[in-house]
Amino acid sequence: MSNDISIALDAMGGDTGLDVIVPAAISALGQHPDVRIILVGDEPRLAAAVAAAGESANPRLNIRHASQQVEMDEMASAAMRNKKDSSMRVALDLVKEGVAHACVSAGNTGALMATSRFVLKMLPGIERPAICTSLPSMTGHTWMLDLGANVDCNAEHLFQFSLMGSVLAAAVDGNEHPRVGLLNIGEEDIKGNEQVKQAAQLLQSGMPNYAGYAEGDDIYKGGFDVIVCDGFVGNVSLKTSEGVARMIAEFIKQEFRRNLLTKLAAMIVMPVLKAFRRRIDPRAYNGASLLGLRGIVIKSHGGADAFAFANAIKVAILEVRENVPERITARLRAYEENRQAL
Amino acid sequence: MSNDISIALDAMGGDTGLDVIVPAAISALGQHPDVRIILVGDEPRLAAAVAAAGESANPRLNIRHASQQVEMDEMASAAMRNKKDSSMRVALDLVKEGVAHACVSAGNTGALMATSRFVLKMLPGIERPAICTSLPSMTGHTWMLDLGANVDCNAEHLFQFSLMGSVLAAAVDGNEHPRVGLLNIGEEDIKGNEQVKQAAQLLQSGMPNYAGYAEGDDIYKGGFDVIVCDGFVGNVSLKTSEGVARMIAEFIKQEFRRNLLTKLAAMIVMPVLKAFRRRIDPRAYNGASLLGLRGIVIKSHGGADAFAFANAIKVAILEVRENVPERITARLRAYEENRQAL
Repeated sequence: MSNDISIALDAMGGDTGLDVIVPAAISALGQHPDVRIILVGDEPRLAAAVAAAGESANPRLNIRHASQQVEMDEMASAAMRNKKDSSMRVALDLVKEGVAHACVSAGNTGALMATSRFVLKMLPGIERPAICTSLPSMTGHTWMLDLGANVDCNAEHLFQFSLMGSVLAAAVDGNEHPRVGLLNIGEEDIKGNEQVKQAAQLLQSGMPNYAGYAEGDDIYKGGFDVIVCDGFVGNVSLKTSEGVARMIAEFIKQEFRRNLLTKLAAMIVMPVLKAFRRRIDPRAYNGASLLGLRGIVIKSHGGADAFAFANAIKVAILEVRENVPERITARLRAYEENRQAL
Repeated sequence: MSNDISIALDAMGGDTGLDVIVPAAISALGQHPDVRIILVGDEPRLAAAVAAAGESANPRLNIRHASQQVEMDEMASAAMRNKKDSSMRVALDLVKEGVAHACVSAGNTGALMATSRFVLKMLPGIERPAICTSLPSMTGHTWMLDLGANVDCNAEHLFQFSLMGSVLAAAVDGNEHPRVGLLNIGEEDIKGNEQVKQAAQLLQSGMPNYAGYAEGDDIYKGGFDVIVCDGFVGNVSLKTSEGVARMIAEFIKQEFRRNLLTKLAAMIVMPVLKAFRRRIDPRAYNGASLLGLRGIVIKSHGGADAFAFANAIKVAILEVRENVPERITARLRAYEENRQAL
């Protein structure tokens, strides 16, 4: 069928391997009858894993051999130079050639970013790629970018991130006017650094859905749909969030394990605790978009399990359906025309 | 007595006012028999509040009149120019004159920072003040700075923050070799911005207790005693933490309120939930130090209640006892001598 969606999986990337990626692929295929998946990696091992799962005859589950594998701690430059037949590189080549519509990888983020940029190139008018994901909030979720692709950003970059984040929110949530916030700090006299102040000016004049400065706690409050910052701040904020959530979960566990009575109480409230955990389950939010490329690339967490990795595949499918790169280009063109008309 | 400690309270600062500050002062006096407190602000109102609390005859609770008050949203420059008899300014003047050993304020952070710097001046060799507080961690607590005094910092500033944070950890925790981490992001190829990389070099060569890069989640893991970053990143990280904690608390509440059964379960586990909440109670961590000044200034949260404000007073008392400013100067001098000897 012409409207089939084909997703290339970097099957050798990540910390967990085929035990996670093959079941995730099979689960995604079950949920999406119009999707084909190409597992990219060591063919004998992949064939064995697919056979073991009883899926050798599945016409929508294909294998593409790649002889190399990018290590999680490998320098991006070394990976690009020495690993031209890596599962990551071949999966991205498939996207470039139009054989696949998107690539999903749980591999080395730096290498994935650099190789994606090299193979797919940037969209016209976008200078830097950005990593974007959605995070749970009190009212639903918040899209946040950049989460670590760029340590230093100027105002123009932050503007472009705002535009890309808006497009993603519109495409995925069907929210055509997402409220965009620029991450800043609240102290009056030192409000923001130069880049942030200049970006605010660009956004005020050029983006109707710009909603002003956001502070760190706004990510989780739900007053903004998209929150934009440079990759250093975004990465620290994301990791900080993980740290707080993990500490709180640990403290809850410790309190319930304190003695026989609290252990009994834990059994009684287990369903409540489980319902609560589901709401902040990071696996449900797995799958970060590498925005700004001429193609769709989704980064899964390196330690993702099959449920989490299947979510990353789902993000890829959604972005293919919604033509996210084309929509970014169209939005940027509309903005540029508007700017020239002024 | 010559070894009495005298603390000046900016009694008009903050969002809550005398209903909080007077009970907090009385509680602190009860806990610290060698401490005197000077309430600075509108004398008739203060005298009435003290009388209402039945403490008019307390020789350790004094009042010092100040005719003005800095508003929470007032620009620091305007406050400094127009409010020379504000409760904040007079409290800081008392520290400068040696009448008080420390000032505690819940007022406007920007104004407090600027006025402190103007009145007290910086310690020799310290270029920028930094806001530092302790945060709960899995193993105890972590000191973090800067939390918002400086949006842009160079390597030398980050080095000085590391030194000041080390002194505070040593003074308050009695930990002479606190492990200092430099906040950074984890992506291999883009590891850190220039300031952070240069600061790491300075720390590696000049600070024996430097323990390497930390990531956002390390704040709460407990592998570092002090974590250093610029004020933009620190403020975002702190606010992000508050946002995550508040969302999680809200989700727990919602799950327990879902139906009659969950409400019953909530009653059963109430003691466990209370014990848990106590461990992450932000009020217990209230009282941020403005480090780098020739004097001790503690910022209380603007919305602090009496318990929280009393904790900020406690921080002030501890820093007076431990001579924090003098110890910072001594440590910096030792470092400079060491550097010249090389």
